[in-house]
Amino acid sequence: MKLLFNTNFLYSPMDGVVAVHAPATVANMVCGFDVLGFAVKEPYDEMYIRFTDKPGVTIINLDAYNLPTEPELNVAGAALLAMLEEIPEPIGFELSICKHIKPGSGVGSSAASSAGAVVAANRLLNDRFSKQDLVRFAMNGEKVASGVKHADNIAPCIYGGVTLIRSIFPLDIVPLTAPELYVTIVHPQIEVRTADARSILKQQVLLKDAIRQWGNIAGLVAGLLQKDYALIGRSLEDVLIEPVRSILIPGFDQIKQLSKEAGALGGGISGSGPSIFMLSKDEATAKAVEQQMHSVYESLSLDHHTYVTTINDTGVRFVNQ
Amino acid sequence: MKLLFNTNFLYSPMDGVVAVHAPATVANMVCGFDVLGFAVKEPYDEMYIRFTDKPGVTIINLDAYNLPTEPELNVAGAALLAMLEEIPEPIGFELSICKHIKPGSGVGSSAASSAGAVVAANRLLNDRFSKQDLVRFAMNGEKVASGVKHADNIAPCIYGGVTLIRSIFPLDIVPLTAPELYVTIVHPQIEVRTADARSILKQQVLLKDAIRQWGNIAGLVAGLLQKDYALIGRSLEDVLIEPVRSILIPGFDQIKQLSKEAGALGGGISGSGPSIFMLSKDEATAKAVEQQMHSVYESLSLDHHTYVTTINDTGVRFVNQ
Repeated sequence: MKLLFNTNFLYSPMDGVVAVHAPATVANMVCGFDVLGFAVKEPYDEMYIRFTDKPGVTIINLDAYNLPTEPELNVAGAALLAMLEEIPEPIGFELSICKHIKPGSGVGSSAASSAGAVVAANRLLNDRFSKQDLVRFAMNGEKVASGVKHADNIAPCIYGGVTLIRSIFPLDIVPLTAPELYVTIVHPQIEVRTADARSILKQQVLLKDAIRQWGNIAGLVAGLLQKDYALIGRSLEDVLIEPVRSILIPGFDQIKQLSKEAGALGGGISGSGPSIFMLSKDEATAKAVEQQMHSVYESLSLDHHTYVTTINDTGVRFVNQ
Repeated sequence: MKLLFNTNFLYSPMDGVVAVHAPATVANMVCGFDVLGFAVKEPYDEMYIRFTDKPGVTIINLDAYNLPTEPELNVAGAALLAMLEEIPEPIGFELSICKHIKPGSGVGSSAASSAGAVVAANRLLNDRFSKQDLVRFAMNGEKVASGVKHADNIAPCIYGGVTLIRSIFPLDIVPLTAPELYVTIVHPQIEVRTADARSILKQQVLLKDAIRQWGNIAGLVAGLLQKDYALIGRSLEDVLIEPVRSILIPGFDQIKQLSKEAGALGGGISGSGPSIFMLSKDEATAKAVEQQMHSVYESLSLDHHTYVTTINDTGVRFVNQ
């Protein structure tokens, strides 16, 4: 993404500006549909916020995605408006956004905008709100993006690492300590609308499949906390969502199979897709997995981007502070 | 349970007898239907095994429950027969059982018999088989008892502590380290057949309920491994099975509510019932919970037994060795 402005020139800490990097996130984590997610180191969005005299929210786009700048229609704007509702004094925020995470890629582009905005704004406010408050505000951005207040991208973006959202109402976020994990992501340049990916799901599932699913999520949580890579690998199985949603993603089965043959622990659809992620124990394997992803999409003549990165334990990161 | 024989007199290590205590177990653990279970210190069955010249399995009842002694119809016998199928040499086992865990109580009476038998037999065989093998053999006892090969009582009985059965086919057992927990169990003297408790369940469930359930099991596993008592308490919620099955257990809702008011972290149906269990952080609370259980069943004029115990980290225990 080519920048429209040289942001380093525009903003410096001298201006009372808070600058953040808001990372991409992978929701669901195969067997944890709607309740698990993790942040990655790359890609990330750059965001800059400062107070302005004009109360309310002003959005400035520094990228070429041409996203709405009306605060109510902008995911970051909606998150900031929710925050302002709980601030008694009249305050104005000017938020400048340079997105590098392509909207609709399935790696939490909207969550990065919403989460980055409220984390940055909270620093301007001397950290008045808790992380849980920030998740609550940012979920309003997700509602703008997909119609549903969900937190499986927002929570890891704000807390970093792997997070469990045990419950949305009431909000109960559980950070999970994970061992070192390398992440390979491939983003095929096709569009899968979150709303479509949701509507394709059945509202009823077989109890026996649900049991298998919660055996797997229990195994995945135990594998992460006990640093048991083999258990993580065995638990990365989704018998409910993946079989339905993966048909929307060309080459999915082949990428999964070749990635595992290349040594990946496992992986699946990132969020509602179309991106696919794979977890590996070391960087060499993660790069070998990337090669397999390239080869599948080259054979299908499908444009795609790949990332080899790691789990991001920090979440939204302050820059120049 | 009054013993028919003085077992201390009958058997001693001098006779080449292996003696074990096989503990009661609590399956499901509220949100972990079919995949979680834990062992308790009390009650437990006493079992004695030795080689005999007669190949096959001979069962001797030392209690007054009058359970079948034909090995194929006896849960411990069926488990030993499954073990014998994988032993090339002709071997005879003589197993004497003194049950203290009442059959049908919902705290793994059949599992104690099956698990105790194969653990004791394996010691006679100089520990030829792995714990996982023993679970596999003992599951044949569960099939005799309830028609289904399940491991959520067997696995904790053999491994001790809290165990996750991530998968039955293939068998994948994950021991989970738990913090100190006190367990109060009440067994109302009514009969709930496992088959009835199974048939009452719906084969299809709402996806949104399943999501809530796997959020809870993920929270429970994280709470146990991170020794977070509050999280354990919040996660002990079952939106799928308990609402259906609890109608078979008189006083269930009242006992649950009063137990929580007395300080219990939470709890629910033990296995398929009728026993109810509650977890507490300390013994005083566990005893206060016991008093609440007494008061509810006394007000209903319902005969009942209670136990205040702790999680049993050992599982089946060798005696006099």
